[in-house]
Amino acid sequence: MKSANPATAPTLTRRELLALVGKVSGGGAMYQAMTTLGFAKESPYQGAVTLEGAPKGQSILVLGAGMAGLVAAYELRKAGYHVQVLDFNQRAGGRAWTLRGGDVFTELGGARQEVKFDPGLYINPGPWRIPHHHHAVLDYAHRLNVPLEPFMMVNYNSYLHSTSAFGGKPQRFKQVTADFQGHVAELLGKVTAQNQLDAGVTKDDQERLLEALRDWGALDKDYRYVKGASSAERRGYDVAPGGGLMPKAVPSQPLALSDLLQSGLWQHITAGADYEYQQAIFQPVGGMDGIAMALYREVKDLVRLNAKVVRIDQSERGVTVDYLPSQGPGPMQQVKADWCVCTIPLSILAQLDIRVQAPMLEAIQSVPYGASVKVGLQFNRRFWEQDERIYGGVTFTNLPIQMVSYPSTGYGHRGKGVLLGGYMFGPHAYEFTAMSPAERVRKAVEYGAQIHPQYHQEFDHGVAVGWHRVPWTLGCYGMWTEESRAKYYPTLCGIDGRIVLAGEHASMIPAWQEGAVLSSLDAIQRLHAKILSTVSSARTSA
Amino acid sequence: MKSANPATAPTLTRRELLALVGKVSGGGAMYQAMTTLGFAKESPYQGAVTLEGAPKGQSILVLGAGMAGLVAAYELRKAGYHVQVLDFNQRAGGRAWTLRGGDVFTELGGARQEVKFDPGLYINPGPWRIPHHHHAVLDYAHRLNVPLEPFMMVNYNSYLHSTSAFGGKPQRFKQVTADFQGHVAELLGKVTAQNQLDAGVTKDDQERLLEALRDWGALDKDYRYVKGASSAERRGYDVAPGGGLMPKAVPSQPLALSDLLQSGLWQHITAGADYEYQQAIFQPVGGMDGIAMALYREVKDLVRLNAKVVRIDQSERGVTVDYLPSQGPGPMQQVKADWCVCTIPLSILAQLDIRVQAPMLEAIQSVPYGASVKVGLQFNRRFWEQDERIYGGVTFTNLPIQMVSYPSTGYGHRGKGVLLGGYMFGPHAYEFTAMSPAERVRKAVEYGAQIHPQYHQEFDHGVAVGWHRVPWTLGCYGMWTEESRAKYYPTLCGIDGRIVLAGEHASMIPAWQEGAVLSSLDAIQRLHAKILSTVSSARTSA
Repeated sequence: MKSANPATAPTLTRRELLALVGKVSGGGAMYQAMTTLGFAKESPYQGAVTLEGAPKGQSILVLGAGMAGLVAAYELRKAGYHVQVLDFNQRAGGRAWTLRGGDVFTELGGARQEVKFDPGLYINPGPWRIPHHHHAVLDYAHRLNVPLEPFMMVNYNSYLHSTSAFGGKPQRFKQVTADFQGHVAELLGKVTAQNQLDAGVTKDDQERLLEALRDWGALDKDYRYVKGASSAERRGYDVAPGGGLMPKAVPSQPLALSDLLQSGLWQHITAGADYEYQQAIFQPVGGMDGIAMALYREVKDLVRLNAKVVRIDQSERGVTVDYLPSQGPGPMQQVKADWCVCTIPLSILAQLDIRVQAPMLEAIQSVPYGASVKVGLQFNRRFWEQDERIYGGVTFTNLPIQMVSYPSTGYGHRGKGVLLGGYMFGPHAYEFTAMSPAERVRKAVEYGAQIHPQYHQEFDHGVAVGWHRVPWTLGCYGMWTEESRAKYYPTLCGIDGRIVLAGEHASMIPAWQEGAVLSSLDAIQRLHAKILSTVSSARTSA
Repeated sequence: MKSANPATAPTLTRRELLALVGKVSGGGAMYQAMTTLGFAKESPYQGAVTLEGAPKGQSILVLGAGMAGLVAAYELRKAGYHVQVLDFNQRAGGRAWTLRGGDVFTELGGARQEVKFDPGLYINPGPWRIPHHHHAVLDYAHRLNVPLEPFMMVNYNSYLHSTSAFGGKPQRFKQVTADFQGHVAELLGKVTAQNQLDAGVTKDDQERLLEALRDWGALDKDYRYVKGASSAERRGYDVAPGGGLMPKAVPSQPLALSDLLQSGLWQHITAGADYEYQQAIFQPVGGMDGIAMALYREVKDLVRLNAKVVRIDQSERGVTVDYLPSQGPGPMQQVKADWCVCTIPLSILAQLDIRVQAPMLEAIQSVPYGASVKVGLQFNRRFWEQDERIYGGVTFTNLPIQMVSYPSTGYGHRGKGVLLGGYMFGPHAYEFTAMSPAERVRKAVEYGAQIHPQYHQEFDHGVAVGWHRVPWTLGCYGMWTEESRAKYYPTLCGIDGRIVLAGEHASMIPAWQEGAVLSSLDAIQRLHAKILSTVSSARTSA
């Protein structure tokens, strides 16, 4: 069977987008893009890790103070190791990063952005959601008393938008969803009633199916999906019921099946049904850096910021790392330890002088990094709530901004508001990365105004992070393919002498904090076992 | 077409339940039960009401300090009227009521419950959710700075449970939802591919439909819904992907179509798709009485609590109301006003001595009140989160408790937790209302333990409110039928001399705070207009 003709389905379907990503990124990017688009993975986290019996005097150097590095430092010190941490930035957290008013960010190429959001407002350039099955991340949040609040992934009152469908008029999520279900139920109901179903479905089951379709599809008593009381209780009203002697309710008119199919908008109605996006899904109150900051508070005394690692050496006796200040002048410095957990992104690590075996080096150099751009826009008022009754959630569009996401916090507040004015990945991310930050913001406002005309009047300030221009990652996340997984992943995750890697790039849940944390927990458990056996055999042979 | 045989669909479908409610309640209850079960209505609220030009010296007596009465008092005073409010209870809020530790509630029959919930824990015996389209209620919350948080209506990790399906083993919401969609997509995909679809669907649309079904149903490349990468990304894994060298992921096995259809569990997968339950949906932080309490703070000086109205008289010159203390001794007292907004529930009003026209009296006496019972259970720990990773949301069951709802707040907290251990309406509500509070709690624990065995170990304390035994409402909400609406509703909402009624019973959105508020706004606007014309014509004739 052949898929719908792209020419008549102007909004990119997920599959079309994947194919396009494949072409643009040379094929290998596709598997990873699938993750970004909703095919990512659950966690086998089994509870807090306990490392017992750390040999006396053993030291471990952790490179990177993002989620993987912070977890490693926190757990290894608890186990009894001497731990030191180096991080490139002037802050901890890595990609678990929140931009607030007063923050300054200078990207590769020198463009400097000063964030002017009002107090309490923010965007998360990196991760911004925590699924309920990301147990390890949630567990650290709970143990460290980081308050969580629901992330509004699905909002039935947000929009689905295509420039080439319904005259460019945004449709409400509830309408597209109700109408797709209704039409599907009516079509399947008809063939079921006409006994044209697969012979495998018994007569009794056919009757149950009909009943289920009527209920689920909001069909009328004759199994039709039409304007009326049933469909209105899903897709809404033209005139809604009121109190006292207010006007009588009037149901709304469903979209025609053909218009709906041609619009391509159906591709977005499973936005909250994909595994990584199913409710319950959370964000830390106040910004996604909350969990990283809570971990950092626990290990702050171990962490040296502003440290740009330039060389990672190892021998049979230990690890030696040279570093310079990332900002400002200062001499080369050196730190020595018995072991090393390296969480530096592969995009950076591949360019460093690191002493590992040839297969490990090859693995480090074989994982390209995904492109992604996020734009945060501050407006003078929360018009999406006040005018359009959209409280949180995501509007999807075929415009290059790809989506608009409304804040899942501060509902109903007067004053300014910050929304995510674009979250680009794949081809659109490359295009936006090539622009200056100001141009990215300008474009995001221009595109977004096609959905929310209030943008023109209410726009106040914006910031834009293109991950390929972030100096300390040079990309958003490690992009694996099935082929590169098979060839390099076990090597990359193995312990090379006295060095083990960790981070989202060393996990099967790339681009998620959970991948970084699980990778770290797995790496330190294996490293701990190796240390125990190494030290005990050294003692035996001594 | 005939519906599924109830004998083989052991979980009551919504329609079966409605039919049963019809039988039990004498037919008239059905329309109203439909509202409770998810067919209720949206609001035509158009923004804050402004009443201008109140004539000098005119007084209005408001009976009842629930949402309708509080809104009336708040707006009428702002307009310039002299307002007084009487309420039966020792607190304001009416059914916008939250039970917390330290509260005491004595029901009809004398059973007294002392609530022993830990600080910060509560249940809302009455309304507990605010849909995003309940604009009037939300607007008062925003204007009075009542913080809101999302109510978790849908949780893909909560359970759907039937004692007679899957050996009584609860199924996760995500599994039933994914499998229903998957099977429906596969069945419709097959007939589409075989050109057996309705002739009205063009060849091009058939191709688009196939593409949409594959995406939406998580079908594999051959349009089958089977165990594998696609279905796992909706229904989850047996072994989930991890970090480092953790075990490889293993997809889970979909439920067979026939088992799924026979289970009846599909009836619950649209729980969050029905109009009143669609996200965004909210609760005030700290309890549903938050909005009523904010209004009460504004009008506190006007409100006399502990006032049991026994007579409502009117003449051409004004309204006279007699009342006694509801608790404790005290003399009969009288209050006079020019006009009256009466928000006393019809169940109570029908028994009072009230002077209105015969048709109004008949209308007041023609609306029976719905039965509903809620049970709040405190447990020693939040095992639903800790053991089962259910953060908020609702588990549906065919047990008499009908549902278990997990708190949409305090996620991850250690310490005790309170969940809604049963929310009964229709026949089960009558059955539970007949029990003592202790017996209701005992039964709720016994039934709930079939879903959560931890109940046995962790149960601490419970309270149960059966609305037909609440002295000041004698029922949960006004139950209209299509027939009674046609016959009595316009009369009930009309102004009878100097008295107008308001409350959820005088709205098209019964059982919801929005109905009460819209009814109140509509009533006071009409009353204001009548006062203006009455006073101006009195002046002219004077």
